[in-house]
Amino acid sequence: MIINIDFNSDEAIYMQLRNQIIMGIAQDEIKDGESLPSVRQLADELGVNMHTVNKAYALLREDGYLKLDRRKGAVVCISLDSRPRHLEMMNVNIRMMVAEAVCKQISPEEMHQIISNMFREFGEFRDDGGRQ
Amino acid sequence: MIINIDFNSDEAIYMQLRNQIIMGIAQDEIKDGESLPSVRQLADELGVNMHTVNKAYALLREDGYLKLDRRKGAVVCISLDSRPRHLEMMNVNIRMMVAEAVCKQISPEEMHQIISNMFREFGEFRDDGGRQ
Repeated sequence: MIINIDFNSDEAIYMQLRNQIIMGIAQDEIKDGESLPSVRQLADELGVNMHTVNKAYALLREDGYLKLDRRKGAVVCISLDSRPRHLEMMNVNIRMMVAEAVCKQISPEEMHQIISNMFREFGEFRDDGGRQ
Repeated sequence: MIINIDFNSDEAIYMQLRNQIIMGIAQDEIKDGESLPSVRQLADELGVNMHTVNKAYALLREDGYLKLDRRKGAVVCISLDSRPRHLEMMNVNIRMMVAEAVCKQISPEEMHQIISNMFREFGEFRDDGGRQ
């Protein structure tokens, strides 16, 4: 999996890293049970501070995407324990998104369409993964 | 309109302020053409720095929610010029949201439901506004 950090982005580097790892899991590029590079290795590779990678890994662990294994290091492990908390956060985020949509005259149908497209896109990634 | 700043939140104060003003517009509490308090007044009221309010107003202007009038100050003015850029940003944000949903086994139907609920909620706010 290739991680691209945009050093000019407004988005904090640890968030970019967190998000790209989640994207990699959703696209089936990183599988459940797979080890991620060590903090030092990834920091070296990306040219970022070890604290930054640590922070991203800590967030991913907190959000139930990773666990820390003494021997294997950071291992992808999707926990559904956080699903209710996750749905709650999603409600908060979508509420804000819909507020903006209402102001900008973006219709429910347009938003439903975007969501359907995205689910289809991820579905295709995952189907491809299965076929390989 | 009552603005509540959570000083303990991870979210930057200017973003909280920006978001709550957009929420107020979507809920029809602040109408198109209405003046917002001056930067100094709002900063005093909320107990925040004037730069913070300035930053929120600048963002709102950039995103086509406000214009600056020499006499009236910051005036709510929804511009649809930024609609395409807005839809693009929405695509990016929903893509990330769906990636998380895929990992956490949140179904398309669940997301569609949240969106429909939110549009209904804002619709009710706006209907009430019309009746008063």
